[in-house]
Amino acid sequence: MGEKLDDDAYEQRLDALQLAVVETQRWLIDTGARVLVIFEGRDAAGKDGAIKALTANMSARRTREVSLPKPTETEKGQWYFQRYVPHLPSPGEVVLFNRSWYNRGGVEPVMGFCTPAETDTFLDDVPRFEAMLVHGGMHVVKFWLDITRSEQRERLEARRTDPLKALKVSPLDAKADEKWDDYTAARDRMLADTSHDAAPWVTVRANSKKEARLAVQAWLLRQLACPHLTAAPETPDPDVIARFEPQQIGNGWLAR
Amino acid sequence: MGEKLDDDAYEQRLDALQLAVVETQRWLIDTGARVLVIFEGRDAAGKDGAIKALTANMSARRTREVSLPKPTETEKGQWYFQRYVPHLPSPGEVVLFNRSWYNRGGVEPVMGFCTPAETDTFLDDVPRFEAMLVHGGMHVVKFWLDITRSEQRERLEARRTDPLKALKVSPLDAKADEKWDDYTAARDRMLADTSHDAAPWVTVRANSKKEARLAVQAWLLRQLACPHLTAAPETPDPDVIARFEPQQIGNGWLAR
Amino acid sequence: MGEKLDDDAYEQRLDALQLAVVETQRWLIDTGARVLVIFEGRDAAGKDGAIKALTANMSARRTREVSLPKPTETEKGQWYFQRYVPHLPSPGEVVLFNRSWYNRGGVEPVMGFCTPAETDTFLDDVPRFEAMLVHGGMHVVKFWLDITRSEQRERLEARRTDPLKALKVSPLDAKADEKWDDYTAARDRMLADTSHDAAPWVTVRANSKKEARLAVQAWLLRQLACPHLTAAPETPDPDVIARFEPQQIGNGWLAR
Amino acid sequence: MGEKLDDDAYEQRLDALQLAVVETQRWLIDTGARVLVIFEGRDAAGKDGAIKALTANMSARRTREVSLPKPTETEKGQWYFQRYVPHLPSPGEVVLFNRSWYNRGGVEPVMGFCTPAETDTFLDDVPRFEAMLVHGGMHVVKFWLDITRSEQRERLEARRTDPLKALKVSPLDAKADEKWDDYTAARDRMLADTSHDAAPWVTVRANSKKEARLAVQAWLLRQLACPHLTAAPETPDPDVIARFEPQQIGNGWLAR
Repeated sequence: MGEKLDDDAYEQRLDALQLAVVETQRWLIDTGARVLVIFEGRDAAGKDGAIKALTANMSARRTREVSLPKPTETEKGQWYFQRYVPHLPSPGEVVLFNRSWYNRGGVEPVMGFCTPAETDTFLDDVPRFEAMLVHGGMHVVKFWLDITRSEQRERLEARRTDPLKALKVSPLDAKADEKWDDYTAARDRMLADTSHDAAPWVTVRANSKKEARLAVQAWLLRQLACPHLTAAPETPDPDVIARFEPQQIGNGWLAR
Repeated sequence: MGEKLDDDAYEQRLDALQLAVVETQRWLIDTGARVLVIFEGRDAAGKDGAIKALTANMSARRTREVSLPKPTETEKGQWYFQRYVPHLPSPGEVVLFNRSWYNRGGVEPVMGFCTPAETDTFLDDVPRFEAMLVHGGMHVVKFWLDITRSEQRERLEARRTDPLKALKVSPLDAKADEKWDDYTAARDRMLADTSHDAAPWVTVRANSKKEARLAVQAWLLRQLACPHLTAAPETPDPDVIARFEPQQIGNGWLAR
Repeated sequence: MGEKLDDDAYEQRLDALQLAVVETQRWLIDTGARVLVIFEGRDAAGKDGAIKALTANMSARRTREVSLPKPTETEKGQWYFQRYVPHLPSPGEVVLFNRSWYNRGGVEPVMGFCTPAETDTFLDDVPRFEAMLVHGGMHVVKFWLDITRSEQRERLEARRTDPLKALKVSPLDAKADEKWDDYTAARDRMLADTSHDAAPWVTVRANSKKEARLAVQAWLLRQLACPHLTAAPETPDPDVIARFEPQQIGNGWLAR
Repeated sequence: MGEKLDDDAYEQRLDALQLAVVETQRWLIDTGARVLVIFEGRDAAGKDGAIKALTANMSARRTREVSLPKPTETEKGQWYFQRYVPHLPSPGEVVLFNRSWYNRGGVEPVMGFCTPAETDTFLDDVPRFEAMLVHGGMHVVKFWLDITRSEQRERLEARRTDPLKALKVSPLDAKADEKWDDYTAARDRMLADTSHDAAPWVTVRANSKKEARLAVQAWLLRQLACPHLTAAPETPDPDVIARFEPQQIGNGWLAR
């Protein structure tokens, strides 16, 4: 566990990937492509950091990170996807969802913020909804950052004690460990029910933040397959990242 | 053809229906229901008037008529439904779409504003999209106002010559008759492909504006089925309004 | 008091004005003008009806009536004008505010929905705010529809007893008479403090709904001064409508 | 010129300021304060980096960086401030404008994207507009990051040759040096005309990126004056940052 990668090696690999990210975004802008990247995972799984590393050299005007606050009373009564739709990418844009509609498959049922029937409806609807987006020409890539229980404990503890991280502490953090098994069950069901050909889940073993960040970028680059790269980016590490398959539940790939 | 109904009889029937509309909306507000009513039909089919008659006594704050301008360049490149979604009803609201996403099944393919592939994608997606809205608790009612060719000619001619109606004249009006058969074919395909159990089309024979307006209100009231009405509203006239059935294409119900 | 104008004479004058309204809007669209018309007045003063009469033949796509619901908690904490600004007219549009930011000069202080300091700030800011809009090329016309106490009583009573008007009844109606004098004082202060050269108040004696509707249209037409009218519109009736002058407070022009 | 500050000293001072930033934002959230920070300056003056350094530990959900794309045709015809207003802070939010409405005082007149009359109107309106925001309880802080001509040349050259910065290169960069004097004149006029008591300009000598970032944070902290800080933040360095005074034009404080 933890970081095995030394800083220099990491920076070198990161720079090479970032160069390809920059070249890819130039091409996405030129062709008017639309890209939606969803980052999900337990608390402290490294979503913020993975997004920051990915976007470090991206165009500020063509890249948007979307992290919606909890819904208002009015939004709660609307069509579930309504408040997300205005944030979908326009031509030439890359949008990164830091958490997403998948709240309804994870934190909401675990914390009792929605009814079981609402989660059922959501899990039923989301593959059709995403398929429609892909059908209409959008790239949709979904990363699940997966960490172990001990790693999460350490990170949340570090957050609690580092005054610079005080604003990252959420009241829900305290429940992350207590509800570990509920979150595990919710994750397993969500991945199994909502991974589909138009937008499969990609699972990332994220105990090493550096390896996870590199893997996310390498995977995304392979997925977008820009034909104008100066150099082929590194191959995503198969020990770190993989398309979700049902056997990942139970074979040790995903932490329990 | 034309109006057979005298003014007094019309006003009397209209008032009775309007009373039920008011009572129904009170109940919709109280229960936080969401209602989407789509009005479609050829140019001059009577969409504006039907909406005006329906909403005459409705709550201004809880009722919205939505008639979107043509899409901007940015919107053209987005997910097709994206610009419509922010207008969907919030709890307690009735939203009336005066034309709608069905542009892509009618005026757009007939006038060459979209590709045949885009229409195919749309016709494929829309039942799933609407089913999702209904699945999430929204009432979706879709009226197709149908007029004959001679009636349309008369109305468009009246529009052209009445200076008070100058702002209703659109450059597309001139094509309505010329492209009559193309519009007919597009309508037939659209009704057949996009009438589904969650949101079936309701076809209205609209040569008599008065009968059409009454029928729309009666049908909508029956559909919403408010349990607190002072008096049962009139039964929708089966010679004027019916749920779409494939045999309506060809059996004379719909004008050709 | 009440209606002295017979229906035929009214329809004839209205048609003539409406023709000029249609011609004027054609010109506004062609020149990309922006027009904001604010309708204010006590409950039941006839704002809805005046707007309906004005817009009867206007372009649905270039005309927007804006009647905002009460602010959300978030909106309450924002800059006061923030929730109104997105509704301001784009080029070629006429926007009609059915009530407006002037809530903070009338219903809010009278009903205790804001602090006296907030009203002071508002009355201080609004002339500068409107001057900026006018400075930037927007037409801003503000109508105050004024009715007498007995007329308001009659209208509110008619509303309460007409089931077709049930959705127009507001819990605030009951206070309109009880707080008559407070509303009078708020009106007087508001008109005096916020009538300025860039956007003066126009006061309309509105006990006769028909005369008020005609006067509003005639005034607006004179103000916009379209150079392409088929016929000069009627002169606004000086017994019905006038630019606000401080002496209107106390000389009997405005009802007390 | 250039960086004189070593990395360790910088990190230490930065961490101390960041701790105070975190504590301040906690208090801003708790009290529902609204903060708008405007970052302006020539191309490559260091706006992006100053924002990144400031926000590194801030709450993602309560902090928004706003960097608007160039206006659409519709927006161009609207009230100039209209497209900015929806981005103003809600209670508890800090909003950072990376460029702002001041485009109309700098890049637009220099590059001929607006008329001289539009700039005049803007310079005339903006103090009143900002005063209204402050009047309504918003904190408005405006930083002008100032660099010398040689420093800008070096940075733009570095940008052009670093493939990782390819997406930061704008077609306008090429004009930055050519139009240096025009930009200087526009800056001088803008600072002189739009620095006012409610929202004075704060000028930052930004040739040293590190000193500039520290100074911005120290100034902002002093301005917001959170009463609950663990330790008093460093005093803003008077050789780096100062409230704008007319004599700064010509006395060497601002680069020419």
